[in-house]
Amino acid sequence: MAAEFSHLDSQNQPGMVDVGAKNSTTREAKAQSIVYLGADLIQHFEAAGWQNKKGSILQTAIIAGTMAAKRTGDLIPLCHPLGLDACTFDMDVQAEEIIITCTCRLHAKTGVEMEALVGASVAALTIYDMCKSVSKGLVIRETKLLSKSGGKSDFQA
Amino acid sequence: MAAEFSHLDSQNQPGMVDVGAKNSTTREAKAQSIVYLGADLIQHFEAAGWQNKKGSILQTAIIAGTMAAKRTGDLIPLCHPLGLDACTFDMDVQAEEIIITCTCRLHAKTGVEMEALVGASVAALTIYDMCKSVSKGLVIRETKLLSKSGGKSDFQA
Amino acid sequence: MAAEFSHLDSQNQPGMVDVGAKNSTTREAKAQSIVYLGADLIQHFEAAGWQNKKGSILQTAIIAGTMAAKRTGDLIPLCHPLGLDACTFDMDVQAEEIIITCTCRLHAKTGVEMEALVGASVAALTIYDMCKSVSKGLVIRETKLLSKSGGKSDFQA
Amino acid sequence: MAAEFSHLDSQNQPGMVDVGAKNSTTREAKAQSIVYLGADLIQHFEAAGWQNKKGSILQTAIIAGTMAAKRTGDLIPLCHPLGLDACTFDMDVQAEEIIITCTCRLHAKTGVEMEALVGASVAALTIYDMCKSVSKGLVIRETKLLSKSGGKSDFQA
Amino acid sequence: MAAEFSHLDSQNQPGMVDVGAKNSTTREAKAQSIVYLGADLIQHFEAAGWQNKKGSILQTAIIAGTMAAKRTGDLIPLCHPLGLDACTFDMDVQAEEIIITCTCRLHAKTGVEMEALVGASVAALTIYDMCKSVSKGLVIRETKLLSKSGGKSDFQA
Amino acid sequence: MAAEFSHLDSQNQPGMVDVGAKNSTTREAKAQSIVYLGADLIQHFEAAGWQNKKGSILQTAIIAGTMAAKRTGDLIPLCHPLGLDACTFDMDVQAEEIIITCTCRLHAKTGVEMEALVGASVAALTIYDMCKSVSKGLVIRETKLLSKSGGKSDFQA
Repeated sequence: MAAEFSHLDSQNQPGMVDVGAKNSTTREAKAQSIVYLGADLIQHFEAAGWQNKKGSILQTAIIAGTMAAKRTGDLIPLCHPLGLDACTFDMDVQAEEIIITCTCRLHAKTGVEMEALVGASVAALTIYDMCKSVSKGLVIRETKLLSKSGGKSDFQA
Repeated sequence: MAAEFSHLDSQNQPGMVDVGAKNSTTREAKAQSIVYLGADLIQHFEAAGWQNKKGSILQTAIIAGTMAAKRTGDLIPLCHPLGLDACTFDMDVQAEEIIITCTCRLHAKTGVEMEALVGASVAALTIYDMCKSVSKGLVIRETKLLSKSGGKSDFQA
Repeated sequence: MAAEFSHLDSQNQPGMVDVGAKNSTTREAKAQSIVYLGADLIQHFEAAGWQNKKGSILQTAIIAGTMAAKRTGDLIPLCHPLGLDACTFDMDVQAEEIIITCTCRLHAKTGVEMEALVGASVAALTIYDMCKSVSKGLVIRETKLLSKSGGKSDFQA
Repeated sequence: MAAEFSHLDSQNQPGMVDVGAKNSTTREAKAQSIVYLGADLIQHFEAAGWQNKKGSILQTAIIAGTMAAKRTGDLIPLCHPLGLDACTFDMDVQAEEIIITCTCRLHAKTGVEMEALVGASVAALTIYDMCKSVSKGLVIRETKLLSKSGGKSDFQA
Repeated sequence: MAAEFSHLDSQNQPGMVDVGAKNSTTREAKAQSIVYLGADLIQHFEAAGWQNKKGSILQTAIIAGTMAAKRTGDLIPLCHPLGLDACTFDMDVQAEEIIITCTCRLHAKTGVEMEALVGASVAALTIYDMCKSVSKGLVIRETKLLSKSGGKSDFQA
Repeated sequence: MAAEFSHLDSQNQPGMVDVGAKNSTTREAKAQSIVYLGADLIQHFEAAGWQNKKGSILQTAIIAGTMAAKRTGDLIPLCHPLGLDACTFDMDVQAEEIIITCTCRLHAKTGVEMEALVGASVAALTIYDMCKSVSKGLVIRETKLLSKSGGKSDFQA
């Protein structure tokens, strides 16, 4: 950890990391965000086919998450502007919560962890938006990276 | 809760809620997001004045969160496009985590909960981005609404 | 028609129309876009519940159209940047085509025709995108304003 | 056509198509959008050098279309975020209508049909915006793909 | 000047100024940006009707400036997200330079100086982009506020 | 200079330059923008550690400039949409002014001059925004390209 600080800019000014000299490889990252709704709300929405007055909750969340993942470089100040070869979502409805998994993939010089995290987070926020009129007890919890591969060091949570 | 479902569109299609008939009032919402870094990392960054090689971690997060809060209607599909009269952040550094609080205020026909939640979430994701090269153990947890006022029903967590 | 040309800027330079002196009234506009798919394709998608490998065709189109309507001032150079109180879609599936109707409403100094037209057009383009791998014969036709009210002169197609 | 449905996601959830395994080739797409103005309006604008009180109609439309084509991945939910090597417009003024042709080109793993269609559509919407104060009879018709090359299967309308 | 520093946030963290308690008034701001091209280049473009291989230089600059002025809150981190009632440009071609004046107007709680400055700057950058293949000696100079009115204190340069 | 005009489009319509046939090389561009604050203001902010009531002036400017450089293709109509491998800023505080230098780098078919110029300009505008409540005498001057390399012809101011 300490080694990192030797890279400190002498002026301590913010700046994008230079990735010009890195090789392009196939990068993949998988991130998770969990939205707690509570057992009552989950049962209600299951019964309604995950529809509410604003529309299809899960599908709207996936679309919002996909669109946000594509705009990661626009939201996170020091992320590189990247494309995406693939961005997919898995929505796992549990007894009290929904587990959102977002997987991003790209052949690039830098990783797509932030893309996966932004995708999962905005999908979670969209579920929050679509359910908030029905309950005040919603909580988004455990947004984290599950795995990444293709870079200097792979990672598996 | 059940009452809500009587509003279901006959086609179950998504759609923005019509707020045309609502009165403009001063709306405020406060949301929180907690980023877990662990005691070691917190101590390291405290020692470095919350600077790393990408720059000032907390200030970058606040700016990113503010800019994202302003673009909430662009990120969350069925949110109304709104302005903001104020958007402020409080960063409370604890022993193992940072508690981000984002407060948004606007005189409008609908609430600014999502603006506060988006602001807190993107600030949290920016901290994640700026610390991820140093540790793989970061987790964003407990993103939730703390309070809202000015609408049909006030709320306090 | 001719009267309009007396307003020509002496330099013929582009410019937003000044709406500062206009009164805010409740403006509504309804626009339509028709996507021709052909009878075979309509039957196939009906059988599949309007799902394809990219997901739910109609819902994705409605979400894309809503998000684009909110960004009209960002897309059409001389449109005023406006909010929206409401934006709703109706998707009418006919034997050979889908008739998309987008209705926008806002209390403002200028009309929301372009918002409704952009919403309907981007919904149509999204249907095109989601069906283009299955057929090359798609055509978007008859994008037009159906009605507008609340301004200097109401209109009904 | 039927073969396509074997790709249906088991959950019927929306998702970007994975293009990671595809080869980069030079892709070109040409799309067309026709704006009907009517003979009287065409003559008026011809006489005025295609200027109105908002400025130069055709040039503004081309710029708007170019800027929108660049943002296709931002507007169409499941389009890949792509760059563009070239984006050009041809504006063919006929007796009663303007035929807009937008040509996009890129060396990429997936095609640029949607870029060309978005470019042509937003150029058409911009003409609509700039002429709508003069006539209520405007219609955008026949937005379609004219040709594409460089992918798995070429196409010529 | 010194009085200002009493407002310093105790944590020195960035934040939007709260304008919630301010009155809405009609705000106007006028800003200027000057692009130096040199006498030779000015004469060449005058002879060519301000057209180059990328198109009409002045019109493209005005459209770009207008679109950027509308997005000021998106570009400048702590600016409030505002609409605009009017945004107009004047392009004054001198012997060696072009003087761009951008005027913005809005009924709002805060001023539109930054909108006018962003509009003038992006128009200047667009002229730079459209002329840079012909000369390396371009300089954008003297971007400044000319006047503002409607707020706490009017200003005239 | 004259040779350039032989490329004039026969219709004088705007259009992106086609870069499809160009080779990808490592492009670098360095641009400068100077913000004049005056000796009094510079001393005040030096004494306050470049903090004002909106936060850290220099850091906010760098972040805004970085985010704007990433969106150059979105702001300048005929710029190609590009990524960025690196974007760094140097803030040189002089007796009466701040000299902002923005350096951008990318392996691409076309240069990144506009990215560097947009980055420096938006950083300058952000300093203006953060200091404008304290002084009306601010001027952004001398925004220009310092150097570029990697393209057909290198340049050094």
